[in-house]
Amino acid sequence: MKDVTNDLVLDRILNAERNRLWRCWTEPKLLEQWFCPKPWHVTDAVLDLRPGGEFSTVMHGPEGEEFPNTGVCLEVVAGRKLVFTDAFTPGWRPSGRPFMVADVSFEDAGEGRTHYVARAMHWTEEARKEHEAMGFHEGWGKAADQLEDLAKSL
Amino acid sequence: MKDVTNDLVLDRILNAERNRLWRCWTEPKLLEQWFCPKPWHVTDAVLDLRPGGEFSTVMHGPEGEEFPNTGVCLEVVAGRKLVFTDAFTPGWRPSGRPFMVADVSFEDAGEGRTHYVARAMHWTEEARKEHEAMGFHEGWGKAADQLEDLAKSL
Repeated sequence: MKDVTNDLVLDRILNAERNRLWRCWTEPKLLEQWFCPKPWHVTDAVLDLRPGGEFSTVMHGPEGEEFPNTGVCLEVVAGRKLVFTDAFTPGWRPSGRPFMVADVSFEDAGEGRTHYVARAMHWTEEARKEHEAMGFHEGWGKAADQLEDLAKSL
Repeated sequence: MKDVTNDLVLDRILNAERNRLWRCWTEPKLLEQWFCPKPWHVTDAVLDLRPGGEFSTVMHGPEGEEFPNTGVCLEVVAGRKLVFTDAFTPGWRPSGRPFMVADVSFEDAGEGRTHYVARAMHWTEEARKEHEAMGFHEGWGKAADQLEDLAKSL
């Protein structure tokens, strides 16, 4: 009986191998290359791949905007699944405003392709609408294109 | 640089062995015997001791009040530390209103005693004040007495 009302979902077949996509998600130097739709970009990625381990980035905009994001991993299944949230900082410390949980999964789809599902689950309808208005579908879609390109190039 | 402003803490030396206290916390049939200050009591305890595993109880009051609580474990270090929260239901699904993270730790204190720290960390000042007004210190204190008595009797 799960209520998916406040979920936003990107569900795609990517033309890249699962393990290469996983590397792009989990190696900081690779993550920084695709995680934000250009002309935005990410620096200072930290990924401690265990429950409670830090997952943080700093997003930079073309006008010099700078947004640090700190969160933690909740679940890590190597090559298959990564769940993280901004609801805590390391040490399970509640952070200002819990916005979302992201659940990203990777499944082989044959012929070197991967079924990629990125699900953003929100605590409130307000947060979901805000994320939608920020351009979830376009933003995560463009980022997925960048991810696919980078993974193919490895 | 951790901000403990919204924490409530119970810090006690309990006259019972660490492993017995751990059993009382993690075996549902034992948990039900001490988890609520009497005359309240708990039934239907579910404890799946892994990150993301269910931690739920139903609290019952003397007038027939019934409060189901569903949450998940965040971190489990056998015999040492249990962290859980009401912020998710299983599957890392954000639950209605994230209220708190509880971080419970157990350290040997010599002569069969245990240093017991139960820390409730809240997302907001409002939640912390609400928890305080609900009787955190008295309630968790009485429950700790019940926990100590049960652990000694094992």
